[in-house]
Amino acid sequence: MADGYESVPVVMTIAGSDSGGGAGIQADLKTFTALGCYGTSVVTALTAQNTQGVQGVHAIPPAFVEQQLTSVLSDIAVKAFKTGMLANAGVTATIAHTLRTSNAAPISLVCDPVCVSTSGHTLLEPDALATMVRDLFPLAALITPNKAEAELLISHTHPERPAIRSLDDMVGAAHALLELGPRAVLLKGGHLTVCMADARAAMAARPEVVLDRTGLLTENMEILLVVERDPEQAELVADVLCEAVEGGAVETTVFLRPRLESTSTHGTGCTLSAAIACGLARGETVVDAVRTAAAYTHDGIAASFPIAATQGHGPLNHMHPILRRSIPRPTESNPHPFVRLLIRKHAGIWKDYVQHDFVRQLGEGTLAKEHFVHFIKQDYLYLKYYARAHGLLAAKSPEYDKIAASAEIMLHIIRESTMHRTFCAQWGVSPEELDSTPESPACTAYGAYILDIGLRGDASQLLMALAACLLGYGEVGLWLRREAARLDSWVKLAGNPYHKWIEDYSGADYQAAVKVGIERIEEMAQDDPPSPKRFQEWSAVWEKCTRLEKGFWDMAMTLS
Amino acid sequence: MADGYESVPVVMTIAGSDSGGGAGIQADLKTFTALGCYGTSVVTALTAQNTQGVQGVHAIPPAFVEQQLTSVLSDIAVKAFKTGMLANAGVTATIAHTLRTSNAAPISLVCDPVCVSTSGHTLLEPDALATMVRDLFPLAALITPNKAEAELLISHTHPERPAIRSLDDMVGAAHALLELGPRAVLLKGGHLTVCMADARAAMAARPEVVLDRTGLLTENMEILLVVERDPEQAELVADVLCEAVEGGAVETTVFLRPRLESTSTHGTGCTLSAAIACGLARGETVVDAVRTAAAYTHDGIAASFPIAATQGHGPLNHMHPILRRSIPRPTESNPHPFVRLLIRKHAGIWKDYVQHDFVRQLGEGTLAKEHFVHFIKQDYLYLKYYARAHGLLAAKSPEYDKIAASAEIMLHIIRESTMHRTFCAQWGVSPEELDSTPESPACTAYGAYILDIGLRGDASQLLMALAACLLGYGEVGLWLRREAARLDSWVKLAGNPYHKWIEDYSGADYQAAVKVGIERIEEMAQDDPPSPKRFQEWSAVWEKCTRLEKGFWDMAMTLS
Repeated sequence: MADGYESVPVVMTIAGSDSGGGAGIQADLKTFTALGCYGTSVVTALTAQNTQGVQGVHAIPPAFVEQQLTSVLSDIAVKAFKTGMLANAGVTATIAHTLRTSNAAPISLVCDPVCVSTSGHTLLEPDALATMVRDLFPLAALITPNKAEAELLISHTHPERPAIRSLDDMVGAAHALLELGPRAVLLKGGHLTVCMADARAAMAARPEVVLDRTGLLTENMEILLVVERDPEQAELVADVLCEAVEGGAVETTVFLRPRLESTSTHGTGCTLSAAIACGLARGETVVDAVRTAAAYTHDGIAASFPIAATQGHGPLNHMHPILRRSIPRPTESNPHPFVRLLIRKHAGIWKDYVQHDFVRQLGEGTLAKEHFVHFIKQDYLYLKYYARAHGLLAAKSPEYDKIAASAEIMLHIIRESTMHRTFCAQWGVSPEELDSTPESPACTAYGAYILDIGLRGDASQLLMALAACLLGYGEVGLWLRREAARLDSWVKLAGNPYHKWIEDYSGADYQAAVKVGIERIEEMAQDDPPSPKRFQEWSAVWEKCTRLEKGFWDMAMTLS
Repeated sequence: MADGYESVPVVMTIAGSDSGGGAGIQADLKTFTALGCYGTSVVTALTAQNTQGVQGVHAIPPAFVEQQLTSVLSDIAVKAFKTGMLANAGVTATIAHTLRTSNAAPISLVCDPVCVSTSGHTLLEPDALATMVRDLFPLAALITPNKAEAELLISHTHPERPAIRSLDDMVGAAHALLELGPRAVLLKGGHLTVCMADARAAMAARPEVVLDRTGLLTENMEILLVVERDPEQAELVADVLCEAVEGGAVETTVFLRPRLESTSTHGTGCTLSAAIACGLARGETVVDAVRTAAAYTHDGIAASFPIAATQGHGPLNHMHPILRRSIPRPTESNPHPFVRLLIRKHAGIWKDYVQHDFVRQLGEGTLAKEHFVHFIKQDYLYLKYYARAHGLLAAKSPEYDKIAASAEIMLHIIRESTMHRTFCAQWGVSPEELDSTPESPACTAYGAYILDIGLRGDASQLLMALAACLLGYGEVGLWLRREAARLDSWVKLAGNPYHKWIEDYSGADYQAAVKVGIERIEEMAQDDPPSPKRFQEWSAVWEKCTRLEKGFWDMAMTLS
């Protein structure tokens, strides 16, 4: 499917629950869903929490944490994991043990070494830190400490190391953390403001460090630079990634992005580590997963909305990369969702068109000849527009199969026009009279509208403009045929002067064309799912053409 | 914003946790996210669970359930609630009490009276049922029992009533359940197969019942009927909704849809009630919320994917109505995400174009006259295409302001062409020579390509085709100006024969036009966010035009 959700890897969060929905497994599950992954979860603790802070914690017994983890791992193929709040040493040790023994190492585990909440609440008992380092870090593909967590972790093994105060300190700290056993360290710099000069100085001192400026304007973006904030002058945030690679070497990447001034940062760390896990689950490298996840998190803060009147630390917006599908995906029980939606959305005018008096009288065989003759003459003129519009559709189609399909339809329309000439001859209209018939306003309106849409829009819009006629005549034909099959039906086929017309449009040939038309617009809607605005445009074209179709039969009845 | 996520109401689930992610608060949070709501949650119990069943339950003390609920309600404005697994009488009573006292009644509460899991595990202690009925039902806008739950609930008050075996039984049962106190009852019929004849018989017996066939093919859909399953012949499922309305009357709606054969039904009830809560939070009527939620749930089962090798009851797909945004939403720190993405995605060819030898030599003032003259003559011819393409853009724009904008640009291009004539005269090219210059292949390729895109595509594609030229010359101008400002720059402005050319494209006039162009394509990307396929098309047009721009300067250097 061409919707960005081709495959759905399974990921797992092992973390606390945040009743307020901004952090913990809630943030993780929202992130997984927004990024197209299937989320499973092992709850380590419950918190009673809102934007003001943590009001209470209920720890889960390690044995039940283990049971949750075992239930999932024994049944479901988890591609990547993240850990968040682990509460205490018992839970931490249990998780590490279960992960180590249940899965083939190395697993894709992102460990967010959560110690204290944004609001200052302890989320990991101090004595659990050593357990996390000893048992869990060696399993981790990546750990994602912030400044305070990094300082705390380092103080255990390097009590002499000073606090982290600069980008250079960050790079040093990340290297020191790597010695604790994880395969990579992402030291998050949200609590430190840096500038481009700092970054350049750090680079000068450590030429092996790669600077990733994807979050900023870079080379050959002068046209944006003049209308945006110059990163050279801006307050920046840097995340430092250190990865142990083959042969004992360490690769270091510094990710720069603009500092955001926002109080909507509750759950930022949870979200970032969850998003990284999604990237790893899709098989991305750590560098790529971190880059994408950092952008997702940054944009989530920027797109946040208030959920509380007096907001402390509000949540970020996890749904910012999501669009709503306007047309459902086809399913076995609804294989043509687009056509179904179009007909239902404009059911009134569609019915007025399909069950028009003209059609009813035609079915009864009571339609006065002059109405039919007027109709068939104008329809002959309309078919010229219709054939030209298919020529225009071919001109808009850069694929051979589509060009061929248009050519086939054009020849079909030409044959239909010949049929019309024959009809006319039978009803006493000579070829000369037919060719010199002036177009009625209803005919010009409809024909020219289709060509106008063809000029204005792309192939999708022109297809919409062509569909109401193709599908509508098919519907009329089938409706009359179904009605004719009823006992004592009002539709008379025997002796009906319009019998052939009914047969033509309900017959296999025409219905095959209808089927092809339906498939083509359904395919278009699924290959290139429209935005709400584009869907409205398609829908408006369909509605207008249905109205013009009805107008065509009004014309026949009023001889206008 | 035109993305279907205009407002984000806050909803809450009060339910158990399913470690496997298919049901419970996990299903609810996924549903909330997919449907554009902000999810909060109160956990009543944890389960160790997978697709095979429930392996363990850890109940949460009622006091901590209350604390979670109070934390959220004291801070966050919840628009609608749903309850799922409530575990026991203590939790149930606590929730009812807290909801009743914390919020102004009536609240929008959907109560899913979960008793037993799909796999047969007890999720509500039998003695809690009476508490749920007594304390919670009177607060509920809607309860959503399935057949077994309805039978269990009814047996308490109507021990004489028989089991539910038919659609008619369902309608009777739904009425009986309404007497238990909720404002509405949705009796889910997933465990009962019905057919159209049953539905018609039930309707005949109860003419006041409304039949909702939105889930089926209906009138004037003959063209779909001939290629799909006829609902007259199909196995159907019916949900029965009874609502108490003003004056003691009851309104009954029967929703019909096709039966799905699937084992991916784990979490169906959770998902349905969560989706209904989303509808109520948006202010929909109960009937509308149920209709939409039932379709969401039905399509989720139909779109399910396997997560386990030997799947028992797998989860449904909560993400089926979601599309991924190809272009991020603009933020304060990235106000032009589309242009940034275009430049970055094609950074190589963009740099080859902007920093072309032609541009470098022009900046140095060393460019041989013959190259510049060849270029300016061909650019004069190219501008004709460029002006015509803007005329075509006007023809594709049904808004007066866009038509006016095109006309302004066309006049600007005409003035630019006059400037080219003046340049040419200065460099010894007569008007006659200029007008009789044959087009180079590079000029024809570029000009004709733009017009071809204009013929093929809609305004958005033509805008993309026009952008590389507009933005690129702006970038070249600014780059040369920035370079010129450096100490000892390689760019020489004083005495440079091409000084005026540099000034023209780096000057305020041209840069204002660049700014308008940038804003217009950013606006287009946000108003009408493209599908991945459409984004690729836009991106391919930009890339091709950048390549043709570079080709234009290659042409100047090779005099081809």
